Amino acid sequence: MFLRNCWYVAAFGADLKIEPLARTICGQPVVLFRTLAGKAMALEDRCLHRGMPLSQGGEVEGEIIRCPYHGLEFDGKGVCRKIPGQDQVPAGARIASFPLVEQDALLWIWTGDAALADAGTIPSHFYHRDPHWEWSPIFLDLNCDWRLLNDNLLDLTHLGFVHKKTIGGDPGAHANAEMRVEREERTVVVTRWLADTEPPPFYRLGCAFKGKIDRWQEIEFRPGLVRIWTGGTDAGTGAYEGNREGGVQFMGFHGVTPRTDTSCYYHFTQARNFRLADPALHEQIHRAAVATLLEDKAVLEGQQARILENPARGFIDIRADAGGLQGRRLVEQLVARESTPSTVASGAARSP
Amino acid sequence: MFLRNCWYVAAFGADLKIEPLARTICGQPVVLFRTLAGKAMALEDRCLHRGMPLSQGGEVEGEIIRCPYHGLEFDGKGVCRKIPGQDQVPAGARIASFPLVEQDALLWIWTGDAALADAGTIPSHFYHRDPHWEWSPIFLDLNCDWRLLNDNLLDLTHLGFVHKKTIGGDPGAHANAEMRVEREERTVVVTRWLADTEPPPFYRLGCAFKGKIDRWQEIEFRPGLVRIWTGGTDAGTGAYEGNREGGVQFMGFHGVTPRTDTSCYYHFTQARNFRLADPALHEQIHRAAVATLLEDKAVLEGQQARILENPARGFIDIRADAGGLQGRRLVEQLVARESTPSTVASGAARSP
Amino acid sequence: MFLRNCWYVAAFGADLKIEPLARTICGQPVVLFRTLAGKAMALEDRCLHRGMPLSQGGEVEGEIIRCPYHGLEFDGKGVCRKIPGQDQVPAGARIASFPLVEQDALLWIWTGDAALADAGTIPSHFYHRDPHWEWSPIFLDLNCDWRLLNDNLLDLTHLGFVHKKTIGGDPGAHANAEMRVEREERTVVVTRWLADTEPPPFYRLGCAFKGKIDRWQEIEFRPGLVRIWTGGTDAGTGAYEGNREGGVQFMGFHGVTPRTDTSCYYHFTQARNFRLADPALHEQIHRAAVATLLEDKAVLEGQQARILENPARGFIDIRADAGGLQGRRLVEQLVARESTPSTVASGAARSP
Repeated sequence: MFLRNCWYVAAFGADLKIEPLARTICGQPVVLFRTLAGKAMALEDRCLHRGMPLSQGGEVEGEIIRCPYHGLEFDGKGVCRKIPGQDQVPAGARIASFPLVEQDALLWIWTGDAALADAGTIPSHFYHRDPHWEWSPIFLDLNCDWRLLNDNLLDLTHLGFVHKKTIGGDPGAHANAEMRVEREERTVVVTRWLADTEPPPFYRLGCAFKGKIDRWQEIEFRPGLVRIWTGGTDAGTGAYEGNREGGVQFMGFHGVTPRTDTSCYYHFTQARNFRLADPALHEQIHRAAVATLLEDKAVLEGQQARILENPARGFIDIRADAGGLQGRRLVEQLVARESTPSTVASGAARSP
Repeated sequence: MFLRNCWYVAAFGADLKIEPLARTICGQPVVLFRTLAGKAMALEDRCLHRGMPLSQGGEVEGEIIRCPYHGLEFDGKGVCRKIPGQDQVPAGARIASFPLVEQDALLWIWTGDAALADAGTIPSHFYHRDPHWEWSPIFLDLNCDWRLLNDNLLDLTHLGFVHKKTIGGDPGAHANAEMRVEREERTVVVTRWLADTEPPPFYRLGCAFKGKIDRWQEIEFRPGLVRIWTGGTDAGTGAYEGNREGGVQFMGFHGVTPRTDTSCYYHFTQARNFRLADPALHEQIHRAAVATLLEDKAVLEGQQARILENPARGFIDIRADAGGLQGRRLVEQLVARESTPSTVASGAARSP
Repeated sequence: MFLRNCWYVAAFGADLKIEPLARTICGQPVVLFRTLAGKAMALEDRCLHRGMPLSQGGEVEGEIIRCPYHGLEFDGKGVCRKIPGQDQVPAGARIASFPLVEQDALLWIWTGDAALADAGTIPSHFYHRDPHWEWSPIFLDLNCDWRLLNDNLLDLTHLGFVHKKTIGGDPGAHANAEMRVEREERTVVVTRWLADTEPPPFYRLGCAFKGKIDRWQEIEFRPGLVRIWTGGTDAGTGAYEGNREGGVQFMGFHGVTPRTDTSCYYHFTQARNFRLADPALHEQIHRAAVATLLEDKAVLEGQQARILENPARGFIDIRADAGGLQGRRLVEQLVARESTPSTVASGAARSP
C-alpha cells in the first residue's frame, strides 16, 4: 500500500560519491550511482542475469555500471550494453530505471509510473543554496512505518515530553498553543502560534531579545516531505502579520521516504539565519539535532514494535491529532487514486 | 493456549523501583510501576492514543503514569486522567489494568478474568520473611515454553547429567531414587528419597554429619510455581518420619511465568537454614545457583530450538516423567476449563 | 526439494575429535561422533525422549553417545541402550542413523534411502593421500542455496570480476575462453582452455615458464562435489593432448552440501603438485584461498538475499551459463526421480 507516484528523497547528493549506494524505496531495491560526468542515476538493484545486487561492489566506468558477479554492463537507462563472453546483447535486455533529479543538494527519486513524473513538482528548497542560511545534514534509518514519522512531525505537542532533555520547553505551552489546520490538494499546513512567551535557551543564542517573544511553528506536510518553520521575534512586533525581521528563524527539512512497510529513511536538515560562519555554534546545533532525532527514533520504533504485536487494534484520536489525521487522509486518498483505473483517475469516467 | 486464570510472579518486589518495568505475561504487554505511596501497579503497556509503550520512558508522578510520547496520564486502574491540549477526557477512556499483589518480596500478577482473581490463593512463602532463613534472588529470561521448565523441575534425574559440574552427584542415585507422585486439584507433589547415601560437598558446608545421610527431594508443583525442598539429616534419625532437625535444608522457589509461546520468565530463590550471616558462603551459594540455572537455560533453549524445527513430532515418555506428565495434564485441564462456557464450568450444566 | 539420495561431505575427518559435531544435512539435524575405537558415526540429533539435541554436550563413552539432558544412551545404529531409572529399554526405541563413510580425509554422509547407499559410488580423491600433492582444508557456512554455489563453480567467468583482487586475471580472457560442456548420467564436465596466454603471478611461483603458457580449467560437477583441475605448461608442449608434465597443477575440491533451502556447507581443499614442504608458500596459498572464498561468500549471500525478496522472479541465461544449466537440470532430474514411485524409478514400468 505504498504511495508510489511521488517524489521522495533518496539520498543527500553529497553522500553519493564513487561507490554506488543501495536504497530500498517503497519496497523496490534501487542502486544509485554517478556517471563519470557526475550525473546521478537510479536503477533497479538486481542484475537481470542471476539477481546479483549491483550495489554490492558494482563498478562504474564512464556511463555504465558493471555487475560485480559476471560483469554485465548497464547504462543509466538500465539497458544492458555488454555481456562478457557474448558478441551480442539480446534486444530488450534491460533492468528498470527510475527518474532521479538532483536539486538543492538532494537526490529526488520517483519509483511510480514514470510517465507521471514531473520534475517541476519537486519542492524547491532554496535554504540549501542561499548564503544567508546555514545547515547540516542528518540521515537516519528508522524501523517504523513512514506514517508514524509523519504523525510525529505534524503533532508537535510531543516536544514537551519526548524532547524534554533537548528542545522541549513547557509541555503545557505546546499543548495549549493556538492551532490552525489547512488542507489543500497535496498539502496540509498546521500553524501554531505561542504569543508572548519566554524565549527558549536556543533562541537566546541567536538574538538578544528585549523580553518575551511571539513564537511560531508552521508545519507544511506534503507526502515525502515535512517542513517546519519555527522562530520568534520580540512580542508585539508583528510576527503574525508577517514581519519576522530581527529575531531567530529555523527552517527544518524532514525528508520522509518509505523503505518497507515498517521502515523508512529520514533525511533531515535544519537551516538557520543567524550567527553564520560560527563553527562552534554550528557543531553545537548539529549535535543537539542528532540527539533530538534519536529521541524520536526510540519513541517511533517502540511504538512500531507494539503496533506490530497486534496490528488490528486501532488508535484513539485526540485534539492534537488534527494535522496528523489530515495528513493520513491525504495519503490514503492519493494511494486510492493510484489503484483506480486511469480513465477514472483522469476524470473521463466522471463526465456525465 | 495460555493458562490465564492464574497468579504468576511478574517481578521481585525489589526490582521495581522508580523506573517503570516492562513485562509480557501470557502474551500481554504489561507495565509495572510504583505510585508515590509505593504501591505497585500493573497496566496494559500501550497508550490508547497511538500505541506507545508506557514502559519506555514513562514517568510516574504521584498516582499516575504519563505516556512518554504525548503525555496522556493514567491512574493505577488504567483510567485516563489527562489529555494534554484538551479540557476534557472522554468518559470510558482507559487501558486495561491487572490485579497485582506484593507479598513475600514478590509481585504476583493475574492477567485472566479479574472477577476470579482471589489474592487469598496466592501461595505464601514465609521463607522470604523468616529470619531463620537466608536467600538471594535470581532472574532469568528463558527462550523456551514454560512447560519445558516445569518438566525440568519435576524430573530431577537431569541433575546427574546437566549439572554434573555443579550440584549433580551420582546419576544412578538420582535415577534410581524411590519416587512417589501425588496429584491434587491444582498441585502435583513428587517425593524422592535417597536413604543412607553420601552427603554431597555442599551439604557438608552446613553440617558435620556423622556418616551417611537420609536425603529428601520434595517437589511441589502448581501452575506458576515449583517449590523444591531438599536436605539431609544423619541416616536413620527420622527424616522420612518428619524429624528434620539438625541437618541442612534448602527451599528452592521457582517462579515460572509464561511470557510468549516460546519464552518464559524464571524467578528463582534458594533459602537455606544454616550458617546465616556468612557473606562469603552466601556469595558462594548464589554463584553456584547462577551457574546451575545457566546450565538449565542452555539445555532448555537447545531443546526448544529443536522442537520448533518440527513441532508436530511428539515425545516418548520414560519412568522419570511421571511427575512432569501429571503437571502437564493438570495445566491442560485448567486451560480446557477456561475455554468452557462458565455455566458449564460452574457445574450447573452437569446437573441432570 | 532436496536431493537426498546422494553422498555429501559432512565434515573433514580431522574436525571430528572428542566432542560431537552438529550438522544439518538437507534439513535433517545430525550429530557426528567418534566411538572409542575411532569410528565416525552419524545419528539424528534429537533424543527420542524430549527432543534434546545430542550434539549439545552429549558425551561419548565407548560405543555410545549419551543425551546431555536425562542420560539416555544410543549406539551407533541409533538404538537406545539405556534409560536411566528403568531396568528395561522398550523394543524399538531408537533414533535414525545415517550411513557415514570416512575416506580420503573426508566424512561422507547419506541422508536418503539407506537401502540405496552404495559406498562404492563415493568419489575417490587420491590427492588427499598422495605424497606428491599438498593441500589444506577450508570450511565455510554459506547463507545461500547450494545451487547458487554450484552455479558459481560451473561458471568461472566470474573470476575476472569477483576475484579481481585475488586470483582473477584478465576478465576478457576468461569470458572468451574456448568452452566445452559434456553431460553424463550423474556428471557435467566443463572444459575451458586458454591457449598461449600470460602465466598469472601464482603460476610463476611454481614454475619458471619459458614464456606464454597453455592453461586449462577442467570442471567436473556431480551433486555434492565440484572438482576444478587447473594448471598450465609451456605453450605448445601438448597440454591439451594430455602431456602436463613440468608446469603447475592445482586440484580444487569443492564439497557442496545442502544444509537448508537457503544455506549450505562448503568444504574446500586445494592440492598442488609443486614446491612441496615449503611452509611459507603453503601458508601464502592457504590465505589466498580463504580470501578468495570469502569473496564468493559475499557475492552468493548478496545474491541469495535479493532472490528471497522476490523468489518468483526468474533468471535470464547467458552463454557462460551452459555448464551451470546442465548442472541444474541434472539435479532436477535426480530429484524428480526420487519422488517417483520406485517401480518406475527402477525401470520396470517402462517395459512395454
